[in-house]
Amino acid sequence: MKIVKEAITVTTRGHNDIKDLTPEVQRRLQSSGLKEGQALVFVQGSTAGVTTIEYEPGLVEDLSELLEKLVPSDRVYRHDETWGDANGFSHLRASLLGPSLLVPFAGGRLQLGTWQQIILVDFDNRPRTRNILLQFVGE
Amino acid sequence: MKIVKEAITVTTRGHNDIKDLTPEVQRRLQSSGLKEGQALVFVQGSTAGVTTIEYEPGLVEDLSELLEKLVPSDRVYRHDETWGDANGFSHLRASLLGPSLLVPFAGGRLQLGTWQQIILVDFDNRPRTRNILLQFVGE
Amino acid sequence: MKIVKEAITVTTRGHNDIKDLTPEVQRRLQSSGLKEGQALVFVQGSTAGVTTIEYEPGLVEDLSELLEKLVPSDRVYRHDETWGDANGFSHLRASLLGPSLLVPFAGGRLQLGTWQQIILVDFDNRPRTRNILLQFVGE
Repeated sequence: MKIVKEAITVTTRGHNDIKDLTPEVQRRLQSSGLKEGQALVFVQGSTAGVTTIEYEPGLVEDLSELLEKLVPSDRVYRHDETWGDANGFSHLRASLLGPSLLVPFAGGRLQLGTWQQIILVDFDNRPRTRNILLQFVGE
Repeated sequence: MKIVKEAITVTTRGHNDIKDLTPEVQRRLQSSGLKEGQALVFVQGSTAGVTTIEYEPGLVEDLSELLEKLVPSDRVYRHDETWGDANGFSHLRASLLGPSLLVPFAGGRLQLGTWQQIILVDFDNRPRTRNILLQFVGE
Repeated sequence: MKIVKEAITVTTRGHNDIKDLTPEVQRRLQSSGLKEGQALVFVQGSTAGVTTIEYEPGLVEDLSELLEKLVPSDRVYRHDETWGDANGFSHLRASLLGPSLLVPFAGGRLQLGTWQQIILVDFDNRPRTRNILLQFVGE
């Protein structure tokens, strides 16, 4: 067994910008040469999260609206008074969704469902460049 | 260290059907022969999720109601217009809960709390047969 | 590759008490001697959860309020009738947040963002002593 490390840089518009990471994660898995194991996807930072979804435009917008409903951006959070950067809602959404995801792979392929893609959701209130850390553990 | 792969097939009624996976995961762990390590539980598909709960009927129904409150099924989501299968709410709940869970084991036993079980929640709006992928990593 | 196991005991006040686990996880990682790999943080029990946040007092209180809003403590859940311990809301919040987190490390350091800390949230309605299981997998 071994670990192969990779990193992906993703530029986002913030404001619930949702990016499909699947093709790039699969590409890096391929070049790792590993066949059986687990892919860790981890986003550095406290205003973004990682999960899976069927990546189609309607649902992507539904998810953005849901997060706006659960954690509204149009109120003042205590965090906003701490720093004055007015992105308290971004942090809270990130904590709720979580920064890491673990996906099994076999035969060198991510074992996602057909309609299941790995996404980054950038909750921040401005464009960001995100550092996504990957680790492939296996044989 | 090595990886042992397993799969569990679970038949659900959909509509927030919640299944206790713990006995089967423990059984597969036993037969893997591994003593110390980590159990990955991953559900393929974009309308189901995995987490832990105290698996007792009252709480199971509470969780179902909570998810209905947070992501109501009685409104129209954009995703419903895309495919016409009216399960936008199922996808959103799945993205919120997430598809994967990692549980440590020691002495060949899952190290869950006494009142902590591994569950599959099937959010889809119809009965489904689910493929749960397991990976035991350890020694 | 190998696995190094550790456990942290944390005393909480319950009621959404939020503890920064980062310094202790980093300390244990250091003493494991491992340089490259993954740190699993898992809380045993069904009324606590683990995630990341920028650990500053304002945001910590924001998160507590958000969870109170999403899963109110001032209503009766079915679970409360089962056991009479009135902490149905604690269980539901725990299932939503999840008990496990996986963080990559490199050069013997957790690869968190600068403003990203690992937290335990204790949702129970009374003080608790929590058992946090750690596993460092790597080389």
